[in-house]
Amino acid sequence: MGDTAASTWMRRALHLAASGPWPDPNPRVGCVIVAPDGEVVAEGHHHGAGTPHAEIVALRTAGSRARGATAYVTLEPCAHTGRTGPCADALVVAGVARVVFAQSDPNPDATGGAERLHAAGVDVIGGVLADEATALNARWARGVALGRPLVTWKFAATLDGRSAASDGTSQWLTGDAARADTHTLRATRDAVLVGTGTVLVDDPRLTARMPDGGLAPRQPLRVVMGLRDVPESAQVHDAPGEVLHLRTRDPEIALKELWDRGVRDVWLEGGPTLAATFITAGLVDDVYAYLAPALLGSGRAAVDDLGITTITDVRRLEVVDVEVIGGDVRVHARPSDPTEEEK
Amino acid sequence: MGDTAASTWMRRALHLAASGPWPDPNPRVGCVIVAPDGEVVAEGHHHGAGTPHAEIVALRTAGSRARGATAYVTLEPCAHTGRTGPCADALVVAGVARVVFAQSDPNPDATGGAERLHAAGVDVIGGVLADEATALNARWARGVALGRPLVTWKFAATLDGRSAASDGTSQWLTGDAARADTHTLRATRDAVLVGTGTVLVDDPRLTARMPDGGLAPRQPLRVVMGLRDVPESAQVHDAPGEVLHLRTRDPEIALKELWDRGVRDVWLEGGPTLAATFITAGLVDDVYAYLAPALLGSGRAAVDDLGITTITDVRRLEVVDVEVIGGDVRVHARPSDPTEEEK
Repeated sequence: MGDTAASTWMRRALHLAASGPWPDPNPRVGCVIVAPDGEVVAEGHHHGAGTPHAEIVALRTAGSRARGATAYVTLEPCAHTGRTGPCADALVVAGVARVVFAQSDPNPDATGGAERLHAAGVDVIGGVLADEATALNARWARGVALGRPLVTWKFAATLDGRSAASDGTSQWLTGDAARADTHTLRATRDAVLVGTGTVLVDDPRLTARMPDGGLAPRQPLRVVMGLRDVPESAQVHDAPGEVLHLRTRDPEIALKELWDRGVRDVWLEGGPTLAATFITAGLVDDVYAYLAPALLGSGRAAVDDLGITTITDVRRLEVVDVEVIGGDVRVHARPSDPTEEEK
Repeated sequence: MGDTAASTWMRRALHLAASGPWPDPNPRVGCVIVAPDGEVVAEGHHHGAGTPHAEIVALRTAGSRARGATAYVTLEPCAHTGRTGPCADALVVAGVARVVFAQSDPNPDATGGAERLHAAGVDVIGGVLADEATALNARWARGVALGRPLVTWKFAATLDGRSAASDGTSQWLTGDAARADTHTLRATRDAVLVGTGTVLVDDPRLTARMPDGGLAPRQPLRVVMGLRDVPESAQVHDAPGEVLHLRTRDPEIALKELWDRGVRDVWLEGGPTLAATFITAGLVDDVYAYLAPALLGSGRAAVDDLGITTITDVRRLEVVDVEVIGGDVRVHARPSDPTEEEK
């Protein structure tokens, strides 16, 4: 079987992988098992933490037809026992003759599967469509590398950087389309985080809503951090589902707690104080600035003091993309070199 | 002669008009004189205030061959005696049989030419490619309607609206490409205006420079406004040409003085105080915000207090276009309804 066929099956496996959930503590993985005569005997993908890995899903479907077959997997089969046994062992036990995978496992706890397969006499080929597989799980891998959830800070401001007028009013700085876009992006994260100050002042619901005002099918965990109490009457309690109150002002402690709960991709909508805390700690990975083409001249700044006194210490970002959304401008940027931000 | 032929000649006249200068106290006008047999007997365009109008340029070339011909002019021939006599009369005297023009003269001092021609027995047709002609002189017409030069405010800031760090340093907030873009746009204006404060603090040269640092061929007038003295050692004096010091803090007085000197398109680079003065007076027609993807958290705001205390009084603009220039974001915006800004 030539490279073209291997690519074709791997592309199918990637397609399966992409239907897995994100954010999730586990990467998205797909698996296709193909008999020597070219017949697909099973397909599978991972459905998220707490469910079987893609290889296990496919092997269960394949049954005895896995014997002598080739398994195409988008990620190197794991060698560790987590919620499930090592996939490498399961492939061996099932009698799979050959394993073709795309991305090597970047998780230090799970790597070693290729060696284990090879030692058991299975033919192993790695690196087929590795770039595509790596891109698919880029955010997951980045979280694993950092050992914490990724943080996206979103703010809305005027062209002159004001998030509210001097009397505190801010509704509505940006237009309907920009706010709808925020809700769409909120729904792609597994937690929305604000400080107690924002809850007490703005009383947000922190839900991801559709343009008609209804709740989006998928809701991020609503998280409030800070030492002050959250009143029971706060709107953050109105929607179904848990509201997590982290009684800390320390962003590292907050992210550790969220990581341990399986949160991987946080949408930070905190006010200027909370934002400054995360930025100075080097804990912001993406910035979405929704800029209203408007001027205020005074009022609340988008972000509080960052401890920067001279221009050479400015926190540099790189523009990822810029879009005009409705009448507003959305700038997506991220730290020029993420590792530098964490020095 | 059908409409298509008239459009063809008018398009040629528009092409000639576009080679005239802007900014200039006069509109850009082109003229083509065509004999009854379809032969072009003369072409001309206006070269700017103090030089003959387009019709006069063309009539001088045409000489006696203007008799019985059709003159295609992009703007209704004038009926008033300014630096030159009325063009309407000159066309009559030359024996032109027919005048086809595009845009009616929006200048109340100069209008009436069509009537004058008609009264003298000349066939007159107006409105051919009027939209194109109107677009060509849109900025000129807007200045005439306002009775003052147009003002474009340019500022550079971080995503959080800071134009300098808290120690006053700001070099360089934006990158080379953004600064080069600023110089290109400076060169399209006939005056660059700053306050004395900016001269004393930043000591700018106010010239339009090429990427190699050399002076652009066309230089705007360098204008400083404010009550404080401008030191002789200030760099604003370094380049050849006049430096105008307007000893006033009143933007209306400053613009009146500039208008009387023939300035029509001002590039305002003043600091936050001067910018606020022009914005609150409703005297800013275009805004160019050069936003560096960076955060400062403190430092000089892009614009000072505008007297706005609540969000409903925010100064709304409309995005004209957004461009990523080098690593920075340029937002071009203007007041939603310019006339509202002047209430």
